[in-house]
Formats: sequence, C-alpha cells, structure tokens
Amino acid sequence: MIKTDILIIGAGPTGLFTVFEAGLLKLKCHLIDALPQPGGQCSEIYPKKPIYDIPAYPEILAGDLTDKLLEQIKPFEPGFTLGERADTIEKLEDDTFIVTTNRGTKHHAPVVAIAGGLGSFEPRKPPISNIADYEDKGVEYIIRDPEIYRDKKVVIAGGGDSALDWSIFLTDVASEVTLVHRRNEFRGALDSVDKVQELKDAGKINLITPAEVKEIHGEDHVTGVTIIKNKDEKFTLDTDHFIPLFGLSPKLGPIANWGLEIEKNAIKVNNALDYQTNIPGIYAIGDVNTYPGKLKLILCGFHEATLMCQSAYQRIFPDKKYVMKYTTVGGVEGFDGTKKEAPKAVVKKIE
Amino acid sequence: MIKTDILIIGAGPTGLFTVFEAGLLKLKCHLIDALPQPGGQCSEIYPKKPIYDIPAYPEILAGDLTDKLLEQIKPFEPGFTLGERADTIEKLEDDTFIVTTNRGTKHHAPVVAIAGGLGSFEPRKPPISNIADYEDKGVEYIIRDPEIYRDKKVVIAGGGDSALDWSIFLTDVASEVTLVHRRNEFRGALDSVDKVQELKDAGKINLITPAEVKEIHGEDHVTGVTIIKNKDEKFTLDTDHFIPLFGLSPKLGPIANWGLEIEKNAIKVNNALDYQTNIPGIYAIGDVNTYPGKLKLILCGFHEATLMCQSAYQRIFPDKKYVMKYTTVGGVEGFDGTKKEAPKAVVKKIE
Ligand SMILES: Cc1cc2nc3c(=O)[nH]c(=O)nc-3n(C[C@H](O)[C@H](O)[C@H](O)COP(=O)(O)OP(=O)(O)OC[C@H]3O[C@@H](n4cnc5c(N)ncnc54)[C@H](O)[C@@H]3O)c2cc1C
Ligand SMILES: Cc1cc2nc3c(=O)[nH]c(=O)nc-3n(C[C@H](O)[C@H](O)[C@H](O)COP(=O)(O)OP(=O)(O)OC[C@H]3O[C@@H](n4cnc5c(N)ncnc54)[C@H](O)[C@@H]3O)c2cc1C
Repeated sequence: MIKTDILIIGAGPTGLFTVFEAGLLKLKCHLIDALPQPGGQCSEIYPKKPIYDIPAYPEILAGDLTDKLLEQIKPFEPGFTLGERADTIEKLEDDTFIVTTNRGTKHHAPVVAIAGGLGSFEPRKPPISNIADYEDKGVEYIIRDPEIYRDKKVVIAGGGDSALDWSIFLTDVASEVTLVHRRNEFRGALDSVDKVQELKDAGKINLITPAEVKEIHGEDHVTGVTIIKNKDEKFTLDTDHFIPLFGLSPKLGPIANWGLEIEKNAIKVNNALDYQTNIPGIYAIGDVNTYPGKLKLILCGFHEATLMCQSAYQRIFPDKKYVMKYTTVGGVEGFDGTKKEAPKAVVKKIE
Repeated sequence: MIKTDILIIGAGPTGLFTVFEAGLLKLKCHLIDALPQPGGQCSEIYPKKPIYDIPAYPEILAGDLTDKLLEQIKPFEPGFTLGERADTIEKLEDDTFIVTTNRGTKHHAPVVAIAGGLGSFEPRKPPISNIADYEDKGVEYIIRDPEIYRDKKVVIAGGGDSALDWSIFLTDVASEVTLVHRRNEFRGALDSVDKVQELKDAGKINLITPAEVKEIHGEDHVTGVTIIKNKDEKFTLDTDHFIPLFGLSPKLGPIANWGLEIEKNAIKVNNALDYQTNIPGIYAIGDVNTYPGKLKLILCGFHEATLMCQSAYQRIFPDKKYVMKYTTVGGVEGFDGTKKEAPKAVVKKIE
C-alpha cells in the first residue's frame, strides 16, 4: 500500500505543479498515470510543438514545459505509479481514500486530487479479433521500456509521429524493424519522415505499404503476423513483437463511476472556493473539471492546483492555521534536504 | 483622449499578462501606472530577487519575469501612460468609461481592468515642511529619466538599495553625487554596498553620515539643502537636485472612491465567474481583488486575467461567439504584423 498526503490522478502539467504547491505546505504527493511518462497531453500529443500562452514564456515546447515542471518539483520527491489506470476508489471510515489501479496497486491518502485531463489515455487498437490474448505477450500499444526489444524482431504499425519516431529509435535496438502503414503517405514532422526514408534506403527499416496487419500468430507469445499488402497480397512475417501505434485517445473511464457529479464529460467543482467536487476530500483540477467560464488551459490548471492545496491543507490539518509566505521571502525547502533562498540583504557600514 | 478596448490600471505582472490574453481575442490594451516603469511590485520592490513559484520556472528573478512578460506581449503593442496615477472614473451614457490621471491624461474604453496590486506606489517623503513647493523643481522621489541629472549636482538621501544603486549609477552622469543617510550602516545587496564604499574611497561619491537633510533652499528651483550631521553639525550644501529615496509604499488611493465594493483594502469580485466588480464593465484582477480563498500570488493573477478577458470580449461583442483556439494550434498573430505558429506536420510519401 502506497501512502501519501495528496494522491494525484494524472501526471499532466496540472498534476505535476500540484506537487510543488503541496510541497510548499509540506504535504507529500504521489501521482498515478496511465501513460508510461509524465506530462499528460503535452508529452503524449504534442511534445515537440511550441506553446505561446504559458505566462512569461513567449514560446516553450510542450516537452520542455514538462521537463521544467519536473525540475521544479524534484525537491518534493513525488512518487509515481506510471502505466496504470486508477480504476476504483473506496472511502474508509476515517474519511480517507484507497485508490486501486487496473494492475491492483493500492494507494491510501486523506486527499485525492483528480487531475485527469481529458481522461486516461487509452490506445486505439486495430480490429484484430484475438489481439487481447496477446497483450503483454508481444503486443504493446505503448512503448514503456525500449530495452525489451533488444535484439528482437519488431513490427510497428501506424503512419504518424509515434510510428515514425519509434521505428527510427528501434533500428538501434531491435534486430529487425518492420513498419507497416495502410497508405504510402506518412503524416509527421518533416525530419522524421525523411529519416525513415533514409533508414529504409539503407536497409535498416523494412517498409511495407500500403498494407495492414490482419492476424497475429503464436502460442504463449507473438511469433508472427499476417499482412495484406496492396489489398490482395497476403503473407506472413516472423516477429517477436507487434506494436500498433495508432494513437492514444483520452477516456474519462472508470472515474465517471465514482459518484462524482459529471457534466459534459467533466467533473463539476466548486470554483468559487477550492475546486472540490461533491465528495469532500476529492478535488478536480485542470482540464478534467468544469465550472461556469471554465477554460481548458494549462495556466488555469496551475491556479486551480494552488488554491486546491490550501484547502487540502485545511482538511489534513483542521487545527493548524497556514500562513502563506512568498517563496522569495521564505525560500523553498525540499524534502530531499535542498534549500533554495534569495540572497539576503546585508546591513553594512560604509566608512 | 487615448482610446482602447481594455484600459488596464496597473502594469504589474497581472496587468501585463492581460495584454497577451486580450491580444489573442484581438482586443487592444492600454496601461496606466504610477511608476515610471512596468513590472509593479516585481520591478519596484524586488527586481533582483528570485521567485520560485512561477510555474515551469524553478527560479526566475522578478526583473527577468517582467522582461519576459514584456517580450511576450510586444506583438500586441500595448500603450502605456507611465508615471501617472489613475484618479477619477466617469461612466458615460453608452456604458463606456473615461479614466483621468493626476496629470489630466484622459483614457476612454468600454472595459476597465483594475490590476492595481496593493495600490498605486507612492513615495515616502521626508518631513520637510516646504518640500511640496519644490516637487518637479529639483526634488524628485522617483528617478524617471537619469539624463536630467547630466552635469548637475545631486544630493540623494536614503540607506537602501535604491539610494545605493542610483548613487552608483549617477556618478557617471552627474557632476557631483552626495549620499546622505541617517545611519552609518546601509541595507542592501552586498555588491551595492561594496561598490559605494569603493566610489567613496575614489572620491566619486561624497558620503555624509549619520546625517539628515532638514531644509531645502532656492527660489524657482532647488539651489541647496541644509544638512545636520552627528546631531549638531549644521551646514548648507549647494545642489541642483534633492532626491529622497525612502521607498515607495502602495496605497489603494483614489480607486477606493470609485463606488466599488471594498473589503480588507481590496476590491470584491465575482470569482465564480469572471472577476467582475459590482460595477459591470469594471473588473479587478491580481493582488487588488479579494474573494473567498484569495491568494496574492502572481500565478493567480495570470488565471484571473485570462478568464476576465473572455468576459470582456462578451461585453464588447455581445453578439459574437468566441471559440477558443489553443495557441499551439492557432498560432499568435500580433497587431504588429508578426505571426508565430507551430511547424506544420507534413504528409509525405516514403518510397
Ligand atoms: C494539440 C494541443 C495543443 C494544445 N495547445 C495548448 C496551448 O497552446 N495552451 C494551453 O494552455 N493548452 C494547450 N493545450 C491543452 C493542454 O495541453 C491541456 O490544457 C493540459 O494538458 C491539461 O493538463 P492536465 O494536467 O489538466 O491534463 P492532461 O494533460 O490531459 O493530463 C491528464 C493525465 O491524466 C491521466 N489520467 C486520466 N485519468 C486517469 C486514470 N483514471 N488513471 C490514470 N491516469 C489517468 C491521463 O493519462 C493524462 O496523462 C493543447 C492541447 C492539445 C491536444
Ligand atoms: C518581497 C516580495 C516577494 C514576493 N514574492 C513572491 C513570490 O515568490 N511569488 C509570488 O507569486 N508572488 C510574490 N510576491 C507578490 C507578487 O509580487 C504580487 O502578487 C504581484 O506583484 C501582483 O501583481 P499585480 O500585477 O496584481 O500587482 P502589482 O505588482 O502590485 O502591480 C500593481 C501596479 O498598479 C499600479 N497602480 C495601482 N493603483 C494605481 C493607480 N490608481 N494609478 C496608476 N497605477 C496604479 C501600482 O503602481 C503597481 O505598479 C512578492 C511580493 C513581494 C513584495
């Protein structure tokens, strides 16, 4: 059982910044995310694209925003349960919560902050009837650890950035990389398309287009796939892994059944005070919440997280009075022993 | 008469960022500030100190934050009325407003955003009975344009960063710099204190401590000051300017009489929607407003400004429906003809 002060569901920009604001209040955080990496939409959908409306950043790549947030929260040593979806919640008699993931990991906390964005990122799966039988047995929709492909044969399917970029990356890891796409045209960053062309010409990527993977074979593990090319050429290819990268789409998913008031696929909160939901102790911040005038913007999630932490503090320490100190004045004391503070003014005689 | 869409009172971080959010909605802004430079508290009180809680900035100097905001809003060409205090407001029959400053400058706009922070920064003045007679005639509490001191004699009074830093700066401009302070000890950045010591030793700053300026002389303009040193040595010094730098303190000031609901020296707003005050068309954002759970933090001002601009848009264009576009997707089109946008994905054949 993982124990923490604030359990954050969703490691997008809102969830990440919550760790910082909680840390200033000496509250510890743990984050759960269905994705294998933090950053939410920023890292999953548009890591290499610039954002122009982060205050005081005339321009910042979404991936760099994630990195900066991770650097900022590092002193507060957040815990992570990545690659797992928060599925169920249980309220205990003492008004604390236990949240369990699809893989059975249990988390216990007095406060739950849902920073779930547009929902848990779930892969789009190809329509192959027995594909579920091979999940985690050679079929992966998300690459968590590229090392498992070391010296293995892999077939990647897809025509976007993920398919292109992972094909490129795995040429240095796998023994054989095949890229299958149902059109001849790929859609992605120019660099990536050109690089795949180059690797194909060099014989390092085996390109099969226009084609689709139609069957998966193997007993306990994938051993091959059947491909149909040009609508009628059917053949079978030996492979250790089949990785369909057709994109991830967010689904509010199981959270919709937690007894929270839902409106337009988002969680209603009290925006006039602390972004708490109808269940005391459960807050919803960032893209996942809704209220009159709501804007699904990153900077709004930052504000909501900040106000929410104050309320969480009151819930956890009902008898303490927190007096806010500017970081410039009080500094930042990490849980890791680090301390940042502004250089002090001196009082010195001039003679 | 200056005309604009959103008239912003206060050019602190909140007021500055408002220009950006308004610009995305194609609304023009003009800012009024009592200070001679933008940045509010950040530039006036602690420009060289680090802030640690600006999201995605693990550390940023308050002065750099101001610079980054100015860079970000540049494409939206904000107008500035600096060094003037917004004193009166008048509502016209067509529900637009005219705001007039203490120097008589008039501004006309359909929306007024008060981003006045802790109030208009007003100088602390030394207790010299006839000092008001010399204001703008050789007595200045704020240095707006250092060039007016070129080849002149100046007497600066004060013991903090401003007094130290301006004494240093003016040694290269003025013909004679005298620094008067009522103690021997100065309070400021170590660098600055040491530099003043050095300039004093080199004969470039005439240091008089512990001492106070007690009288000002001159007919139409300052010609000299009387100083008392060590409690009883009284003497007169020729000078063209007397610059008391005893700090600026913010005062809500005339805005308190605009008919707005005030609570704890701040303006009450509707935080459940759009940060509007009790007078439709007048909003209050950033440190200047209050609502349940309010935190006087920079990141909160950013969020408030953003929501406020949406409401301002509806007020100005009641019949238009604004559809928000992410900056990453829609880019940023400046009023100055510049356009920023994310590199587009290509659709390209690999053969
Ligand atoms: C192409 C594009 C461009 C954009 N441009 C801008 C822009 O210019 N400016 C701007 O401000 N915003 C922009 N946005 C929106 C911005 O990315 C979102 O507002 C932001 O990511 C929301 O952050 P969040 O942390 O609230 O949620 P997300 O970033 O959506 O993160 C939520 C995370 O929660 C996880 N999650 C949800 N439910 C569960 C569960 N049950 N179990 C485990 N994990 C779960 C998800 O997997 C996800 O990783 C853009 C979005 C897109 C797609
Ligand atoms: C030492 C110190 C350290 C701080 N550290 C932090 C920190 O670490 N993190 C953080 O988030 N915040 C910090 N703050 C607070 C932060 O600076 C404020 O929240 C922020 O400046 C508020 O921005 P604002 O734009 O709302 O108002 P301000 O910065 O106060 O700007 C308001 C401006 O409006 C002008 N004005 C007001 N009335 C009038 C009028 N009638 N006419 C003309 N001009 C007018 C004023 O002159 C002023 O320039 C700190 C503050 C101080 C003093």
